[in-house]
Amino acid sequence: MATETSETAWMQSNGPEGDVVMASRVRLARNLQGVPFPVHLDAARGRAMTDHVLEAVSSLSRDWQLKPLRLESLAPLDRQILVEKHLASPLLVADPIRYEAVVTDARETVSVMVGEEDHLRIQVLLPGLGLSAAWSVADRLDDALEERLDFAFDADHGYLTAYPTNVGTGLRASVMVHLPALVLTREAGALFHTLAQTGVVVRGLYGEGSEGRGSIFQISNQVSLGRSEEEMVHALTVVAEQVVGRERHARQQLEKAAPLALADRVGRAFGVLAHARILTSEEALRLLSEVQLGIALGTLPGFREATFSELVSLTRPGLLQRYAGHELDAGERDRTRADLIQRHLAVG
Amino acid sequence: MATETSETAWMQSNGPEGDVVMASRVRLARNLQGVPFPVHLDAARGRAMTDHVLEAVSSLSRDWQLKPLRLESLAPLDRQILVEKHLASPLLVADPIRYEAVVTDARETVSVMVGEEDHLRIQVLLPGLGLSAAWSVADRLDDALEERLDFAFDADHGYLTAYPTNVGTGLRASVMVHLPALVLTREAGALFHTLAQTGVVVRGLYGEGSEGRGSIFQISNQVSLGRSEEEMVHALTVVAEQVVGRERHARQQLEKAAPLALADRVGRAFGVLAHARILTSEEALRLLSEVQLGIALGTLPGFREATFSELVSLTRPGLLQRYAGHELDAGERDRTRADLIQRHLAVG
Repeated sequence: MATETSETAWMQSNGPEGDVVMASRVRLARNLQGVPFPVHLDAARGRAMTDHVLEAVSSLSRDWQLKPLRLESLAPLDRQILVEKHLASPLLVADPIRYEAVVTDARETVSVMVGEEDHLRIQVLLPGLGLSAAWSVADRLDDALEERLDFAFDADHGYLTAYPTNVGTGLRASVMVHLPALVLTREAGALFHTLAQTGVVVRGLYGEGSEGRGSIFQISNQVSLGRSEEEMVHALTVVAEQVVGRERHARQQLEKAAPLALADRVGRAFGVLAHARILTSEEALRLLSEVQLGIALGTLPGFREATFSELVSLTRPGLLQRYAGHELDAGERDRTRADLIQRHLAVG
Repeated sequence: MATETSETAWMQSNGPEGDVVMASRVRLARNLQGVPFPVHLDAARGRAMTDHVLEAVSSLSRDWQLKPLRLESLAPLDRQILVEKHLASPLLVADPIRYEAVVTDARETVSVMVGEEDHLRIQVLLPGLGLSAAWSVADRLDDALEERLDFAFDADHGYLTAYPTNVGTGLRASVMVHLPALVLTREAGALFHTLAQTGVVVRGLYGEGSEGRGSIFQISNQVSLGRSEEEMVHALTVVAEQVVGRERHARQQLEKAAPLALADRVGRAFGVLAHARILTSEEALRLLSEVQLGIALGTLPGFREATFSELVSLTRPGLLQRYAGHELDAGERDRTRADLIQRHLAVG
């Protein structure tokens, strides 16, 4: 089971501030000089662009251990799994699949989406709070690729991108955070409102429309023009540290103000997760979130041979079907999800 | 904990058809010749009536092991516990307490309420389906008391009682049944409707207004005139056997039609009971009922050192406070209830 995703570093272990920050991500948008943005590319020119990028990738040092995956050669399930692991965006794997590709390394820390909104989106994803480390890996890969590819760059505007919000550094940094106490105490709304005023964007686990599911949020900075990459990464790190502090404080407050209600809530979540036979993905996410709060507070034992990040991902339809080894209808998924989670709960 | 109620035979063990029938009860209404019914008695005459009855009781053979309890000498909590054990009616222990008494034996199989609607209500309560056995104990006690007391009796109407529905034999027979599958399959309503047409009354666990809580019902026959006691007891036994058959059939149907949904439901109930820290009496009753269904179907292990009947009773406010050894406010009761139930769940 867990072996199926053992390659995915960000899910596998808890990184710095891992009680709150599940993962850190840095993404660079890059485009080839003289080639239209993907939205204007026909299949033939798109394929030529992809071939060109993959050729550059294959010429990189072996240390990068990069493996190109052409989406047209992947089954729909495998494409879905790339999204569930946050290695590809829903947009990249959406039909029609023509020439798009994803390049990943063995541990799935690095992924390069080819043919999404921009020709290249270089992404580095690390467990816990590690934006600087992610940025420095992304920067090295960017440099290595730029030696082989001619990126569209303007002395005034910086890197040119398909969408104006990305122009400049082409950088977007984000952290995936678990904020159960801030949600329980209803402080999350006010916090996000304050963050929005500083140009920081908060979305749900799987982007717009998934706000608050499992109390997991993605916090990112939006402006990519007028500041250096280091400044942006540092600014978001400071924001993330503040959020970590607020969440930890809210947890302590909950423990102090209503220890029994808290123990009751996480206990019930544990009890249902441990004994239900049918779990929808929405209920599983909610209950896993509450159990994880109990684990963070030391009220409950940790998950067995799995992290919270891993279980959150493993209970998604694609990874769940890979776990089962065959296609599952919705009813079978709900049963398999309950079964999978129970194997990872330290009962008794 | 369980030792606190070890005297109460009906709670302690499962009797015949114990998977469905929790207890059987036979009750005889008797009044003293020439003494007004309790509703018309002042305290002085009531006290004289009680003294007279208790004197007769004390002269019975020692085999009966009867112990008189004058309600005025009992703390309110102890009176409440008598009701929770079904040894006294809510009416008997309702204020004002003047001269009323309850006579019980060591195992609390027999109870005689003195000064409720009738001067005496002789009750025998046995675990499982045992109406004939209960009747024969009640009949023997009635005979023994009638040797010592002059019961109001009319050659045409039989025993005279405060309420006309009891005139004749003065007998009311009832069974307490657990019908979770008939409730889940929504067959209970139609069944009760059919029973009502044959003069059989269905009420909730604690009388009117408690219908369906924990899927526990009291089924009794109402008409006490025109049939012999043996006929009435036999008739209700036949009804009870039919109900047992219907419930068992419904359980099998549920297991056949939706085994997973059933396992999910009883599993969730078990999980919450085993891990919640706060349980209201209503939620506890509902969850105990679902867990008991799982136990009856062999899906879950049995309760540890307790029966379903015992836990249903022990989670009531009075017995819960006796279990705790001191008075508890509502919040403390909800915590103690969760604690008590967890001690009796066979977890892990």
